[in-house]
Amino acid sequence: MHKIKIGIVGYGNVGRGVEYAVGQNPDMVLDAILTRRTTAEITPRSASTKVFHVDKAQDLIGSLDVVVLCGGSATDLVEQGPHFAQYFNVVDSFDTHAKIPEYFDAVNKAAVGSNNIAIISTGWDPGLFSLLRVVQEACIPDGKTYTFWGPGISQGHSDAVRRIKGVQDARQYTVPVDKALDSVRSGLNPDLSIREKHVRQCHVVLESDTPEERKRVEAEIINMPNYFADYDTTVHFLSAEELLAKHSRMPHGGFVLTSGKTGAGSKQLAEFSLKLESNPEFTANVLAAYARAAYRLRKEGVVGVQTVFDIAPKYLSIKSNEELRETML
Amino acid sequence: MHKIKIGIVGYGNVGRGVEYAVGQNPDMVLDAILTRRTTAEITPRSASTKVFHVDKAQDLIGSLDVVVLCGGSATDLVEQGPHFAQYFNVVDSFDTHAKIPEYFDAVNKAAVGSNNIAIISTGWDPGLFSLLRVVQEACIPDGKTYTFWGPGISQGHSDAVRRIKGVQDARQYTVPVDKALDSVRSGLNPDLSIREKHVRQCHVVLESDTPEERKRVEAEIINMPNYFADYDTTVHFLSAEELLAKHSRMPHGGFVLTSGKTGAGSKQLAEFSLKLESNPEFTANVLAAYARAAYRLRKEGVVGVQTVFDIAPKYLSIKSNEELRETML
Repeated sequence: MHKIKIGIVGYGNVGRGVEYAVGQNPDMVLDAILTRRTTAEITPRSASTKVFHVDKAQDLIGSLDVVVLCGGSATDLVEQGPHFAQYFNVVDSFDTHAKIPEYFDAVNKAAVGSNNIAIISTGWDPGLFSLLRVVQEACIPDGKTYTFWGPGISQGHSDAVRRIKGVQDARQYTVPVDKALDSVRSGLNPDLSIREKHVRQCHVVLESDTPEERKRVEAEIINMPNYFADYDTTVHFLSAEELLAKHSRMPHGGFVLTSGKTGAGSKQLAEFSLKLESNPEFTANVLAAYARAAYRLRKEGVVGVQTVFDIAPKYLSIKSNEELRETML
Repeated sequence: MHKIKIGIVGYGNVGRGVEYAVGQNPDMVLDAILTRRTTAEITPRSASTKVFHVDKAQDLIGSLDVVVLCGGSATDLVEQGPHFAQYFNVVDSFDTHAKIPEYFDAVNKAAVGSNNIAIISTGWDPGLFSLLRVVQEACIPDGKTYTFWGPGISQGHSDAVRRIKGVQDARQYTVPVDKALDSVRSGLNPDLSIREKHVRQCHVVLESDTPEERKRVEAEIINMPNYFADYDTTVHFLSAEELLAKHSRMPHGGFVLTSGKTGAGSKQLAEFSLKLESNPEFTANVLAAYARAAYRLRKEGVVGVQTVFDIAPKYLSIKSNEELRETML
C-alpha cells in the first residue's frame, strides 16, 4: 500500500497533534515538517520525518501528497493558505468565520491555478459541527438548530484577559448552561439570549495580588465589551503555580442540537456532542482524516477548494467501500 | 424553481411520513402515490397528488424525479428495489443488514441498466447512525465505537411476542442500560455483553388473562432464543384498552458513541443521539433528504447504487453551497 505522504506547516500544539494522528493512521506517514524556526530546534518523533524551513517549500513540490497547515487563523493561515495551495494539496482548520468567503476565494484561486485540492475550515467548529448542523437540519427541516460550546478553554477570551494591565496569566473557560441545554432537549425551541446559553469563568494570576487589584481587574473583565459584558462572568484569582497545576490542559467540546416536529406534530431531537480532553489534538485528528480525503479526491481529479460540506463520508475512512458497507452500514 | 417531483411506493406509516416530509420541504412536491391497494382506498393530503396502482409504474417513467420506496425490508423492498430502479431514481431504507451486499448488487444492476441512481439503506440505522459511525471513527482512529438503540418500540420483537399462542397483542420496548452508556462515556472502553447493553420490556395483552397463562407466556417470552434469551426481559400484562392508550405511539432513538485516545493519551469522546417521538416519520424525513440528494446527483451524471457513505452533506440541504458556507460553516 502506498502510504499518504503528509507534510505539516507549523509545529505548535496542532502540528504536534497531527504528528501523533498520522502515527495512529497506518495508511499515512509524516514525511516533512516545515517550520519558520531554525530547523535544528525541532526533533520529530520519528527519524524518518525530515525538517525544512518554510522557505524551502518549493523544493518539496511533488514529494508530498498532502500538506496540513497547522497555524492559527488570525495571522498564519490567511497568508499560508493561498501560499501553500500553490505548491501542494492542503488541508486546514481556518476558523475566522467572517473571513471564510474571502479566504475561500484566495485559496481556490491558488489551488485551481496549480491543479491542487484544498480542504479548508475542517476541525470541529467549523468542521464536524458544521457537517452535523447541515445533516440534522436537512433531516428535521421544520426544526431549529442550536450550537453550544464547552466546557472548555477559549483561547481568544484567555488572551483578552491576559492583555489587561496587571494580569500575569489567565485561562478562560466557556461553559454551556445546563438549563438552556435541557430546555432545547425538551423540544421547547426556546429563543435563547447570549447570556442564557453560556457562562464564562476566568482564572487569573495577578502581577501584584492585592484586594484593590482584584477589584479593579474583576471589574475590567466583566465589563469588557464583546468578550464578557454580554455574559455572566465569574473571576477567580489564584497563584501561577495553581494555574499551571489545575488549568494547563486544553479541554473543549460542545453540542449541536436540532429539535423540531414532523408529520402531524411528533417531536424529534438530534444531538451531536464532543467531550475533548485536548482540543488541538482532536482538531489534528480531524485534519488527518480530511488529509486522507484530499489525497483520494485529488486522485479522482478534484481540484480547487472544498469544505466539509463537499466531502462524502467514505473519503474520511481508512476502510474500503466494501468494508464500510459490510461493517459500518 | 423546479420542484423535485416525488413519488412514493407504499402508503403505510413511512409513506404517510414522506407525504408530510415533502410538505415541509418547499423544493419538493408529492406527485404520485403508488399502491398495491385499490386506488380509491387512498386519499392523499393534497389534491395535486395522484394515486396509481403499482402495476401502472411503467406508465410514469419520465414523469417522476425520484421515487421513495416505503415498504418493509423483509418482503417488500427485496423485490421493489430492483423492480422500481428499472424505471425511476429510487431511495429506500432497506435495513436487513445481512442481505445488504446482495440487495446492493441487485438494485445496482437494475439502476445502471436504466441510467438511474438508487440510494439504498438510508433512514437512521442504517443511515445517519452509519454515517456517524464512519465520521467519528475516522476522527478518533484509536477509538472504539458503540451503538445503543432505544428507548423505543422494536417491530420485530413485538411481532415475535405476538406470534406466541394466546397473545392477543403486544409491544416490545428496547431500552439502553444507563450504566453501560455511562461507562462508555467515561472513556473506559468496556467490552459489553448483549445483556449489559440493553434490556427488553414487553407489554402483553392475553386472549385469556389467567395466572397460569401469564406464567406460561412470560416463560415463553424470556426464554425465546435470539429474541429474548440473551437479555434481561420484563413482561407486563395489561388490557387491550391500556395498550392502545399507553403504547400506540412509535417512539425510538439511540446513541452512537466513539471513545478513544489521541496524542500522548488525551481522552476524546464523540456522541450522536436521536430521540424520536415517531420512528417512521423521522425515517421518512431522512428519506426525503436523500431523495433531494438523488435528484441532484443524477443531474450531475451519477448512476447506480449509492449509500450514505457516498453522499456529501451539501446534497442533503435545500440551501445553496454559498448559503451553506455563509450560514452553517
